[in-house]
Amino acid sequence: MDVLTSSKRIAVVGATGYAGGELCKLVAAHGGMQLASAMSARSEGGARVARTPGEVNVDAYTPELFAELDGVFVCAPHGASAPVVLAALEAGAAVVDLSADFRLSDPSVYESTYGLPHPAPELLSEAVYGLTEHARDAVAATRLVANPGCYPTSILLPLLPLFEHGLVSRESLIVADSKSGLSGAGKGASDRTHFGNVHENFLAYGVGTHRHTPEIHQHAGTDSIRFVPHLLPVERGILSTIYVQSAGGVDAEAIRSCLSERYADEPFVHVRRTGLPELKDVQRTNRCDMAVCDADGTVVIVSVLDNLLKGAAGQALQNMNLMLGLPEAEGVPCV
Amino acid sequence: MDVLTSSKRIAVVGATGYAGGELCKLVAAHGGMQLASAMSARSEGGARVARTPGEVNVDAYTPELFAELDGVFVCAPHGASAPVVLAALEAGAAVVDLSADFRLSDPSVYESTYGLPHPAPELLSEAVYGLTEHARDAVAATRLVANPGCYPTSILLPLLPLFEHGLVSRESLIVADSKSGLSGAGKGASDRTHFGNVHENFLAYGVGTHRHTPEIHQHAGTDSIRFVPHLLPVERGILSTIYVQSAGGVDAEAIRSCLSERYADEPFVHVRRTGLPELKDVQRTNRCDMAVCDADGTVVIVSVLDNLLKGAAGQALQNMNLMLGLPEAEGVPCV
Amino acid sequence: MDVLTSSKRIAVVGATGYAGGELCKLVAAHGGMQLASAMSARSEGGARVARTPGEVNVDAYTPELFAELDGVFVCAPHGASAPVVLAALEAGAAVVDLSADFRLSDPSVYESTYGLPHPAPELLSEAVYGLTEHARDAVAATRLVANPGCYPTSILLPLLPLFEHGLVSRESLIVADSKSGLSGAGKGASDRTHFGNVHENFLAYGVGTHRHTPEIHQHAGTDSIRFVPHLLPVERGILSTIYVQSAGGVDAEAIRSCLSERYADEPFVHVRRTGLPELKDVQRTNRCDMAVCDADGTVVIVSVLDNLLKGAAGQALQNMNLMLGLPEAEGVPCV
Amino acid sequence: MDVLTSSKRIAVVGATGYAGGELCKLVAAHGGMQLASAMSARSEGGARVARTPGEVNVDAYTPELFAELDGVFVCAPHGASAPVVLAALEAGAAVVDLSADFRLSDPSVYESTYGLPHPAPELLSEAVYGLTEHARDAVAATRLVANPGCYPTSILLPLLPLFEHGLVSRESLIVADSKSGLSGAGKGASDRTHFGNVHENFLAYGVGTHRHTPEIHQHAGTDSIRFVPHLLPVERGILSTIYVQSAGGVDAEAIRSCLSERYADEPFVHVRRTGLPELKDVQRTNRCDMAVCDADGTVVIVSVLDNLLKGAAGQALQNMNLMLGLPEAEGVPCV
Repeated sequence: MDVLTSSKRIAVVGATGYAGGELCKLVAAHGGMQLASAMSARSEGGARVARTPGEVNVDAYTPELFAELDGVFVCAPHGASAPVVLAALEAGAAVVDLSADFRLSDPSVYESTYGLPHPAPELLSEAVYGLTEHARDAVAATRLVANPGCYPTSILLPLLPLFEHGLVSRESLIVADSKSGLSGAGKGASDRTHFGNVHENFLAYGVGTHRHTPEIHQHAGTDSIRFVPHLLPVERGILSTIYVQSAGGVDAEAIRSCLSERYADEPFVHVRRTGLPELKDVQRTNRCDMAVCDADGTVVIVSVLDNLLKGAAGQALQNMNLMLGLPEAEGVPCV
Repeated sequence: MDVLTSSKRIAVVGATGYAGGELCKLVAAHGGMQLASAMSARSEGGARVARTPGEVNVDAYTPELFAELDGVFVCAPHGASAPVVLAALEAGAAVVDLSADFRLSDPSVYESTYGLPHPAPELLSEAVYGLTEHARDAVAATRLVANPGCYPTSILLPLLPLFEHGLVSRESLIVADSKSGLSGAGKGASDRTHFGNVHENFLAYGVGTHRHTPEIHQHAGTDSIRFVPHLLPVERGILSTIYVQSAGGVDAEAIRSCLSERYADEPFVHVRRTGLPELKDVQRTNRCDMAVCDADGTVVIVSVLDNLLKGAAGQALQNMNLMLGLPEAEGVPCV
Repeated sequence: MDVLTSSKRIAVVGATGYAGGELCKLVAAHGGMQLASAMSARSEGGARVARTPGEVNVDAYTPELFAELDGVFVCAPHGASAPVVLAALEAGAAVVDLSADFRLSDPSVYESTYGLPHPAPELLSEAVYGLTEHARDAVAATRLVANPGCYPTSILLPLLPLFEHGLVSRESLIVADSKSGLSGAGKGASDRTHFGNVHENFLAYGVGTHRHTPEIHQHAGTDSIRFVPHLLPVERGILSTIYVQSAGGVDAEAIRSCLSERYADEPFVHVRRTGLPELKDVQRTNRCDMAVCDADGTVVIVSVLDNLLKGAAGQALQNMNLMLGLPEAEGVPCV
Repeated sequence: MDVLTSSKRIAVVGATGYAGGELCKLVAAHGGMQLASAMSARSEGGARVARTPGEVNVDAYTPELFAELDGVFVCAPHGASAPVVLAALEAGAAVVDLSADFRLSDPSVYESTYGLPHPAPELLSEAVYGLTEHARDAVAATRLVANPGCYPTSILLPLLPLFEHGLVSRESLIVADSKSGLSGAGKGASDRTHFGNVHENFLAYGVGTHRHTPEIHQHAGTDSIRFVPHLLPVERGILSTIYVQSAGGVDAEAIRSCLSERYADEPFVHVRRTGLPELKDVQRTNRCDMAVCDADGTVVIVSVLDNLLKGAAGQALQNMNLMLGLPEAEGVPCV
């Protein structure tokens, strides 16, 4: 790892998980950043992010280092994240938090969703929800970004422009049927992540109860989205199939045009002219690809992204680049 | 294979495909049937259904044999199936056709869906759509059953009782988001079935154009169902996630009760009290398992079945049992 | 489950694991046995073997029931198995133990292999190693069978006849390169069984240290077999590739003939005339299929079996059938 | 794609296959090369290497372009490759041929192996077998490199130093049991590549007949290696388990030391001190990782690589870099 004197000094907290591991690789290969430290509360002084040569070592959690850093990515579980965020902010670092701790603006919604009082409600007002393409200026101006969830990113990117242009009403019923690869369930060993329960299987879960539902509702500005997540026997990727009832006289082509124009200059959002996107199109990239179809008068939008990149580490790096004054796309994999 | 003098003599036409292969195994193990012939237009005189010892040999297509048979399962592509069906009926055999040729009552819908004129419109009036639990008496009384498609079976079994009892209106928008294993795409080698395009991938297809849509609409008695199929990287199984807007005052529990009562005595339909069904619960069985949940006021029904059994060969055997006066469940795998 | 007055009363101890679950299904469907009890030390009074309707409930471990039973299958970890075996034998039941506790005749080898003193050395002399096709009479005459390991079964079935007929010398170097599906690693959740570490991966393990090595060496009667196991990203099946240097003048065809004659009348061992066996040929059957090839003068034998059936529960049922005077193949899946 | 005036102009012929596609991506991202043309005999004027935005278009095969190029990668089937190689050499380009056409120095061995007369025997004497770490100077000095096969690379890298230092005798029997992901079988749709025949399956093939055997024997300088390939249900990666009988007094540690020293300065070959390498360690890198173990006196070497990188496109890029005077590791993925 080159240590450039002018490069930004970065730490990743929670480096042994999937998103943290991706961030370590991205930062280590970034021309304008250096990976000053990869930390983990679980580290016992020498875990590696991966077993390959060249991978960084993971240190114990050492908040004393924050004072020397420009930016900190926090990849900790909800509840455990807020204290790390606080320490990093106090030390003067820019923070992108990948947990859910700062995604919901209302602490009472947080409490009912996550089952504990909000650990740092005083920070909620300055946290910016980092759906980058819809919050670029606010991200660049803040010191704390709440990085969006993987499912919400796949659903909000197609829906927000349609609401904004009135092509779809926030009052109408919308179905978001989402399917995610297993890395979304994390690296913890459990019955759910056991190979024998995932391979050659498929299931729905969290119907009506998944914690991403309030996040989707808040940032879409409507409760009328019905969200059901499913677990795919693949490692990486989310595909969301979104059914919308367009406003009078608006057809699939109008919706496609709206999305296509909105994202024409965005390197990480691609609205297809023909064909349907597949997980393989976006795995290991930071892109969200989408297509618009007509099904007997209902408009169906299919969106795909890599849950570890545009759904986590990749979008986080877009945000950190903006916060530190670097080009937004630097070091973010596109193809 | 025992040749019991009292057992029914059965042929499977199209024995080298997935559904035909399953039927050969089921018939060979059936206490009241004998597999008189496994035929294939593709056979060159000695193909095996599978490479294992004990499996039956597959003969060339020999309609002359039909006169000696009690029943014929036809597992041929649409269009190619009707002439086989005609030959078998003329020879006096009971016929279960697993193709789409007799599922649509209106030949003009068939032509617009399948791109060719209906090959035997004179038979449409007597063909019975064999969703067994909803057509038992008609199946027992006919000589020709059109075996339902795999996706329609997973969608109609949960929806029909709700329409009949008025718990869901046929006028309301319904979303049926379905996911199928690769065996639904058949044994033909193609880009779509290449391991490299299926493994670690997931995709939607046929949005607004899938040929099962008119079948679902006709047998549901409504065009208001939006159906989108997807391709899973698994071998067997379909999971359909169905979103319904129940009639005023009807909640998820009422819908669950309705389904639970309707199917209480059915060995092959299981309405769960708790938890959600997974593909693993029903693979290699003829069961359709379902569960009912509430998602912010919308009712979500998750149904699963094995596309090669309840979605094809297993339901076909239920139907043939009924047509030949045998116990409906005989030889049909339940657990 | 029918309770036939004449049927043998059977218990499965360790019913929540893979092999125990298979045994519960096989016994429940067996015409001459009834599943009197499925027990587990891990059960809290109501676990199910699987989530499907019709599956048996699993009770707490209740050795008091053994006195009413004809046979007990013990599917417990090594060390934990011996006390259960003792209790069942004292109660007068026939016992098939699927653990490693009685596979090694020398307690000092057991101690060095498994790291604990042998828990019941007094039983070692009467335990019969149940490689059924090579121990039929001894199995029928004993009250305690040590069911062979999955890897050893795949290696000993091809090798034993070659040693016996002198076609391969026990002094010559033999390589047994084996590959197993993940169910061989058990149902416990761990890093090794996490989907993310198995899917799209492959690895060797236990080189020179795997606990099946002493078992293979003892029952082959030679230390000259080099055994390396590998972990496949599949659920079920073992394939062993065995390299032997045949004695002077013996070619692959002679070796094939020897095996073919030895197993000609065996329903569960199939020596192929042409082609190579694959996992798919034997999954969900109790068969071991094998083929013999020449590679530049070295003879290569490829053998496959289902690790949960011929490698565990299926062979265990062959053995119990023999011990209880039932037909050996009854209830054992062959095709 | 930047077109730097000083960058080397490169074409990839056979760009629609797996290896050609990888090369297009590597060249497009290479700081010292530009992808002047991606060609395919199968192209109909506009195929894409992949469906993602940013990917290059594939043109029809246009040898007239070769005169403007510095280097040509030829990814064509054996027999079809030689004419392309000839045309490119005549036009003055450096050529790395990924087919088997120039790997075997004896045209009669080529003919008996590939079933056709060698298409360009006059070139055999100048073709350099590009196992880069063992042919660096010769590669840098030639205009034609025969890029090694994927299996041979995984076997020769561990064995060659042991032969050279006399730690293993070329006279002794060596077993190389290799397992490859499905991408090694190419993109062609066939029964072998059908998902239903690969997923949840595993098989050996080509025992004693695989075309890589003569390649391994020639470049190892011995016929005493027994090579059996197998097909894994994964997309990428090869693992070879190699059993060697070391010369008198040489143990596993001595062999590990020899390999470790030989490759100490090689960025793309990594000899592990502890643990065993897995496919996941090297997928999407150009590395070959290996470990050495003792199994009852026999030395077992486990080597892994990505069949599309170190086994094809990555090693080809190492070679082209050398031929064009660029740093060998430039643009070659290591971590």
